[in-house]
Amino acid sequence: MGRQGILIVVSGFSGAGKGTVMKALTDRYDSYALSVSATTRDPRPGEKEGEAYFFKTREEFEQMIAGGALIEYARYVDNYYGTPRAYVEKQLSEGHDVILEIEIQGARKIREQYPEAVLLFVTAKDFATLKERLIGRGTESEEVIDQRLRRAVQEAEGIEEYDYLVVNDVLDDCVEEIHRIIDSEHRKISRNTEFIEQIRAELNAFAKGE
Amino acid sequence: MGRQGILIVVSGFSGAGKGTVMKALTDRYDSYALSVSATTRDPRPGEKEGEAYFFKTREEFEQMIAGGALIEYARYVDNYYGTPRAYVEKQLSEGHDVILEIEIQGARKIREQYPEAVLLFVTAKDFATLKERLIGRGTESEEVIDQRLRRAVQEAEGIEEYDYLVVNDVLDDCVEEIHRIIDSEHRKISRNTEFIEQIRAELNAFAKGE
Repeated sequence: MGRQGILIVVSGFSGAGKGTVMKALTDRYDSYALSVSATTRDPRPGEKEGEAYFFKTREEFEQMIAGGALIEYARYVDNYYGTPRAYVEKQLSEGHDVILEIEIQGARKIREQYPEAVLLFVTAKDFATLKERLIGRGTESEEVIDQRLRRAVQEAEGIEEYDYLVVNDVLDDCVEEIHRIIDSEHRKISRNTEFIEQIRAELNAFAKGE
Repeated sequence: MGRQGILIVVSGFSGAGKGTVMKALTDRYDSYALSVSATTRDPRPGEKEGEAYFFKTREEFEQMIAGGALIEYARYVDNYYGTPRAYVEKQLSEGHDVILEIEIQGARKIREQYPEAVLLFVTAKDFATLKERLIGRGTESEEVIDQRLRRAVQEAEGIEEYDYLVVNDVLDDCVEEIHRIIDSEHRKISRNTEFIEQIRAELNAFAKGE
């Protein structure tokens, strides 16, 4: 390919359908790779090593933290979850655009270490749609609704730290929208320095009559 | 539309086909408007006021300069050429993406006054193609070739001041590429503050049980 991949961070409102969109995007275009997280939680039936997760013991995971082998990590309840650096960087150097589906704390870590990463925030098309998803099908307990609400309010606070707002209304359109954004990002001057240097060198040589 | 237009600056190598691309883009999509320059040069047969140019006397033009009515202007040989601010801002406020085809000095003026403008640099796909165009069909004088060369070398120096590199190889692809870039630019977080503020306000109100 000759081009460097782009690191893409995807966050967004719970219930905006991030997972479905990313799955459709990677199914449709070979140029994308979904990052595979490392975790200390036990594999569920049918989960294979290196597919949904890299499964680690607590000791292994803590060694990865200590050795800088994770770009970012977080602890939920009693388990660690994190993004292995090696997998991401291998995919990027092979020209794949790597997608990380993480929350804002992780997104910030990425931005610090990879300033050229592209951060996408996925939302429903309007508040009414989002509300429907927060409330659910009328089957959710008050506690669950309250939890979702507080999470959405929190998620909304950090939107300005992202680069693009992506509206997931019609799945297919949303997938194409993200693909166009990443395609456009590849056209950024800063991502085409090699091409520019070459055409400039050839132009100068030509001007000197070489 | 409810959305603010984007000011698009297009520069690039002479012979990269900028004019053709912009014409095709504005023909294909209603959302774009080509900026109309003001000039003191005489109308050529068939040129209508307000189409290719707004025709001005030297006195009128110098009054526009003095009154800040031009975003940028330049003098070539004995004539002035410039971009009237009123036309551009009217189009932007009506939601049109306004295209200015100007050189780097003008592009810099735009960036100073409209930091959110998008600057595109158009090139041929490689040096060999560019060279062919610089040399022409073997009918050009050495002087003309030399002039084109020096201009291309100069144009190449400022590329890093632009945002995107657009390769004009197949016209149709190039038009779509630019359209995708502008479409993606409309998805930038900074261009969607109204949407974000609204969904955030509704979310907060909902969380408070209002």
